[in-house]
Amino acid sequence: MARHVYALKPRWSDLDAFGHVNNVTWLEYLQEARVDMLFVHASEQGAERLAEGVLVVRAQIDYKRPMVFRQEPYLIEMTVSGLRAASFSIDYDIVDPDGLGGARYGSASTTLAPVDLSTGRPRRLTDGERAALVAFSG
Amino acid sequence: MARHVYALKPRWSDLDAFGHVNNVTWLEYLQEARVDMLFVHASEQGAERLAEGVLVVRAQIDYKRPMVFRQEPYLIEMTVSGLRAASFSIDYDIVDPDGLGGARYGSASTTLAPVDLSTGRPRRLTDGERAALVAFSG
Amino acid sequence: MARHVYALKPRWSDLDAFGHVNNVTWLEYLQEARVDMLFVHASEQGAERLAEGVLVVRAQIDYKRPMVFRQEPYLIEMTVSGLRAASFSIDYDIVDPDGLGGARYGSASTTLAPVDLSTGRPRRLTDGERAALVAFSG
Amino acid sequence: MARHVYALKPRWSDLDAFGHVNNVTWLEYLQEARVDMLFVHASEQGAERLAEGVLVVRAQIDYKRPMVFRQEPYLIEMTVSGLRAASFSIDYDIVDPDGLGGARYGSASTTLAPVDLSTGRPRRLTDGERAALVAFSG
Repeated sequence: MARHVYALKPRWSDLDAFGHVNNVTWLEYLQEARVDMLFVHASEQGAERLAEGVLVVRAQIDYKRPMVFRQEPYLIEMTVSGLRAASFSIDYDIVDPDGLGGARYGSASTTLAPVDLSTGRPRRLTDGERAALVAFSG
Repeated sequence: MARHVYALKPRWSDLDAFGHVNNVTWLEYLQEARVDMLFVHASEQGAERLAEGVLVVRAQIDYKRPMVFRQEPYLIEMTVSGLRAASFSIDYDIVDPDGLGGARYGSASTTLAPVDLSTGRPRRLTDGERAALVAFSG
Repeated sequence: MARHVYALKPRWSDLDAFGHVNNVTWLEYLQEARVDMLFVHASEQGAERLAEGVLVVRAQIDYKRPMVFRQEPYLIEMTVSGLRAASFSIDYDIVDPDGLGGARYGSASTTLAPVDLSTGRPRRLTDGERAALVAFSG
Repeated sequence: MARHVYALKPRWSDLDAFGHVNNVTWLEYLQEARVDMLFVHASEQGAERLAEGVLVVRAQIDYKRPMVFRQEPYLIEMTVSGLRAASFSIDYDIVDPDGLGGARYGSASTTLAPVDLSTGRPRRLTDGERAALVAFSG
């Protein structure tokens, strides 16, 4: 299957005092895209427990050009990379929708660990979860 | 001189639906600490123009243990590393104040580039800025 | 013409520790809806300067039932009421889209004052602005 | 006893594109002050269950002068007014600390209803809660 694409509409309140989408809010955009992929789409494919909780273990973002408030959404393209026993990674690219110039705003990667809700501790990925995640790998 | 330490009091609104300080908000904490160092303290030492605008070029965070809502602040310890012609890096450690158990919550690094406000473009660091930043290096 | 309707998609990050869209975020939703009406749609009708800055002078919200994170947007219906020399009011209703049960989540009202950007001080509404705003009145 | 006073340090991220503490964030400030009063101080006086959850039923804010990013905190003065069977109100004033000019930034009022966590439904105030809240009335 490959990448999952999420369209995010910026809010005016995402702007900081410099008039750009604040660098912190970029991480919020990634989170919204990831929630859509994991809670909504992966859940439909047998990975319901991922929706219970996934810890972000590591995050890395490269900021290439500023995002602004506008009517057109930004697209966040995601692929699952680095599927391990008790963690996995998602890579992100933030780009324009087709027909809007083709700018690339930045790229990012997060390492995620599923958590057992009853104990609050990391746990291994189940076979069903691995299968659902593989479907999003490149 | 070495590191600059910023004490940040968590807000109840920093919590997400899992009851932890959301991973996105960690980057906000780093931003508040950095603003204190660059806009307030570095400005007093001859680096006023840094307050006009500094772009975040890259950010990387390692999340080690969750932060919660509490009365005691979290400490963000910062040192300047990697001073270059038109950019510099800040390394961060998020820890407990003395006497609170000594937990380390996470560490991070951001690469920053000063911006010329009139053009919106990156510019070189001035000698005064370099001197102010060196004072915060390890 | 009458009311202006804005569809707002909730973000997962809008949730607080109780799992609901936080009461503070409701005011953010109103702001996004208002920005859409004033900056985007009213600007097209001769009220460009409103986009420069409008101060919120007063806000009042009645919370009737909780909003949650979901795929379907919430609709924010707005009408301009109380057009005065140097201020105007917007009334809001937050409701479900058609076919979704017809729930009413809350209602609100804000009093707004246009600001002269060069001085930062309130100013009178221009005739063009009044005409653009009248188009949104009930 | 009378009013409870909470000192809130503004964050740089509280600023919007106009360089002021955004009008939405004012409601966040009230929330932080209220959490301090209800969850921290009232809990110590026998009203622990209020910390489980209090719904905001109504909020009203008058914005008098802009708040900015600064080192000095803003003070939020609160008194409990209108204690009823299943709800109560808190009135707020946002002012400067002593010695800072004595500005009054705004005032607000929120109506709050305690919620039974197991059912998610409003419930009556207990005698212990009423006693704890009376201590904060004017």
